[in-house]
Amino acid sequence: MTKVTAQMSVSLDGYYAGPRHSGDGSWIDSAEAAGFFRITRWVIDAMAWRERQGFAGGQKDTNSDIIAETFEAAGAYVMGRRMADGGEVPWGEEPPFRAPVFVVTHRPRQTLVRRGGTSFTYVTDGIASAIEQARAAANGKNVAVAGGGSLLRQVIEAGLLDELELHVVPVVLGTGMRLLDAGLGLADKEAIELTPTRVVHTPGVTHLRYTVNGRAALVLDDRGSGTGEPMPADGDGA
Amino acid sequence: MTKVTAQMSVSLDGYYAGPRHSGDGSWIDSAEAAGFFRITRWVIDAMAWRERQGFAGGQKDTNSDIIAETFEAAGAYVMGRRMADGGEVPWGEEPPFRAPVFVVTHRPRQTLVRRGGTSFTYVTDGIASAIEQARAAANGKNVAVAGGGSLLRQVIEAGLLDELELHVVPVVLGTGMRLLDAGLGLADKEAIELTPTRVVHTPGVTHLRYTVNGRAALVLDDRGSGTGEPMPADGDGA
Repeated sequence: MTKVTAQMSVSLDGYYAGPRHSGDGSWIDSAEAAGFFRITRWVIDAMAWRERQGFAGGQKDTNSDIIAETFEAAGAYVMGRRMADGGEVPWGEEPPFRAPVFVVTHRPRQTLVRRGGTSFTYVTDGIASAIEQARAAANGKNVAVAGGGSLLRQVIEAGLLDELELHVVPVVLGTGMRLLDAGLGLADKEAIELTPTRVVHTPGVTHLRYTVNGRAALVLDDRGSGTGEPMPADGDGA
Repeated sequence: MTKVTAQMSVSLDGYYAGPRHSGDGSWIDSAEAAGFFRITRWVIDAMAWRERQGFAGGQKDTNSDIIAETFEAAGAYVMGRRMADGGEVPWGEEPPFRAPVFVVTHRPRQTLVRRGGTSFTYVTDGIASAIEQARAAANGKNVAVAGGGSLLRQVIEAGLLDELELHVVPVVLGTGMRLLDAGLGLADKEAIELTPTRVVHTPGVTHLRYTVNGRAALVLDDRGSGTGEPMPADGDGA
């Protein structure tokens, strides 16, 4: 059965890149890029990712297997416009997706057909529509939300994501673009519950996969701790 | 050799409690508490934690073993004043620490000696001093930073933490108090590098333990991806 899935590499503090680049200077010299390349180093080192990009070399290891499996499971993609535009030149004539990609945008554009099975269809009537079109095109495989982060956050906020895999990289960035942030629109005493389905650890990255169960009220449950306040969480050292 | 260690339960988005409670109403009814008790449910269910609190029952399982091991490894504690004050009544005459606790505070107070090996010494000359006093008292065991979150963040910021274990709970809170936040004071293109040393997964929580290597410059390393921009991280869906 088709699931709507997503995976993203994040730092231990939840950032997928440094602070968003805008204005002067090139992206590659930005703090956004420095953070992004630290977080995705394990991807770029992996043979399965390099193959898809047409690059030689790389390591054939557990990380590479996970990337291969992720590509293989996706029958169609949903993507944000900034990511699609940013990738257009580097991905070239034969992009790594090898499947239909539905780009969520406000600016219409004609479908772009590339070699190897990749096409980019620009969807202007919203995220849910893009996911439905991708579902129809996925041939029973998964619909993968490719990114970027703000699109994925919108998909989660809308309750449309079935499975989330975070690749947690052992670094703290302290600042940058965070996937799971206030944009999720959760109220006080409201949460999104998940069920872990797989944990795979390698030295450079820990892969945490979850089924997304959806929003739920946070009902107080102190498990009969008796005191109501066994261990207050915060101390200001004052 | 004595290490300075810390462990904290956090949501998948990095919160250890809901939004900080202040003003009207009781703590137990606050969003802070609702988040805190969701995040620490696995702790309260564990036999090793309940034993230390003098509560009956609980589960004897991997989570309980990890808690027992964590208590056992600590020869002394460092704690923030809000946590110490909040725990004073519920912890009672025989607190769960069974070791000297050094409380970082601006307000002097006489040392409080409790039963079972726990004492609370109030340190007014800073975090580094509290850690040094704890180190001297630890008898070769570890100095554990007990919390709360803002004290632990200050210890990390000061470069004084050797080992960090995060217990990642499968829930997204969306808002609240975050351990790894802007208070770390990291500049753009600066990061804290860690080395994972142990990953233990149970259905209710994933335990990620790291050695903290310290601050490092984020030097751009695109690993010969060739393009400089293989997959931009963010898409705004616009």
